[in-house]
Amino acid sequence: MPANKKPAADQRARYAEHCPVGRSLDIVGDRWALLIVRDAFDGLRRFGEFRDNLGVARNILADRLKKLTDAGILDSAPASDGSAYLEYVLTKKGEALLPVVIGLRQWGEQHLFAPGETHSRLVEKKNGKTVPRMLPVGAEGKPLSAQQVEVVKAPARRAAKK
Amino acid sequence: MPANKKPAADQRARYAEHCPVGRSLDIVGDRWALLIVRDAFDGLRRFGEFRDNLGVARNILADRLKKLTDAGILDSAPASDGSAYLEYVLTKKGEALLPVVIGLRQWGEQHLFAPGETHSRLVEKKNGKTVPRMLPVGAEGKPLSAQQVEVVKAPARRAAKK
Repeated sequence: MPANKKPAADQRARYAEHCPVGRSLDIVGDRWALLIVRDAFDGLRRFGEFRDNLGVARNILADRLKKLTDAGILDSAPASDGSAYLEYVLTKKGEALLPVVIGLRQWGEQHLFAPGETHSRLVEKKNGKTVPRMLPVGAEGKPLSAQQVEVVKAPARRAAKK
Repeated sequence: MPANKKPAADQRARYAEHCPVGRSLDIVGDRWALLIVRDAFDGLRRFGEFRDNLGVARNILADRLKKLTDAGILDSAPASDGSAYLEYVLTKKGEALLPVVIGLRQWGEQHLFAPGETHSRLVEKKNGKTVPRMLPVGAEGKPLSAQQVEVVKAPARRAAKK
C-alpha cells in the first residue's frame, strides 16, 4: 500500500476496532450467512435441509456453517433422533440476531414488494397477528428517525488516563 | 444443473419470491453495501470520503455505489458547494434501513466486545442518551423472543382463486 494511503488504513483499523456495525459485518456481512441464520430461525437444522432450501453449493454451505459455528452463532450436535447427522441450532448469541433478521424482513416487505404482492409473514405464535414494525425507540418511548440519532466516537482511552 | 436438482431450484425460486428477508439480502446482503449505508447514516457523502473511511478499492466502491443508487437506496446529485463532485445521500428507502443498521450495531455491542472495551455509541441527539436496545414488540406491547414468533408462508394465490 502506498505511503500516502497510510492515514486511510489507520483510520480503517481504528474504525474496525470501535464500530460495532463493522465488527458485526465482519461476521454476518454475507448473504449466505444471514440466509442460514434466517433458516435456523425457521427451524431448519440439517445440512441437507439448508442445502435444499437455499440451493447453495455444498462447499459454500459447509464453509458458512463452519464460520457461524466458530463464531458461536450456531452450535452443532448429533441429531436428536440418534442418526449420524449433525444438527445446527442457534445459540443465545445467534438468537440475538433476531432484530437484524426482522429488520431485513420488514424493510423488504415495505420496499421490495408491489402492492398486493404476496409474501411470507412473521406472526406471534399465540395469536397469529403480524409482528408490528420494529423501530428504535428513545428514552421517552417514542420511535426515533435517522435524523434524531447520531454516532459518537469511542472515548480516547489513552488521553483519558493522562 | 442436473435434473435431480430441480426441486431445490424450484423451491429456491419460490422462496426468493415470497421471502422478504431473501429479497432484501439480494440487495444489501453484502458487507460493503451495508458499510456504505452505515457511513451514509453518519453523514459521509462523497466517493473520497467513503473510500478513505472504508479503505475499499475504488472499483468495488464504484460498483456498490452504483448498485445502491440503482436500487433506490442512495440518490446522487452534484455537490451542494458547486464543485464537480457528486454527493450520495440516503433516500427515504435508504433511511428505512435504520433498524437493520441498529440491529447490527446492538448485536455487535452485546456480543463482540469484551467487558470494558470501548466502542462508538448511538445516541439521541437531543439528550445524548444511548439509544435503548431495539427489540420486536408484539401486539400487547411486550418484547418478543425468537420462540414467540414464526413465519407463515404466503397464501397460494392460484389455489385461492379456484
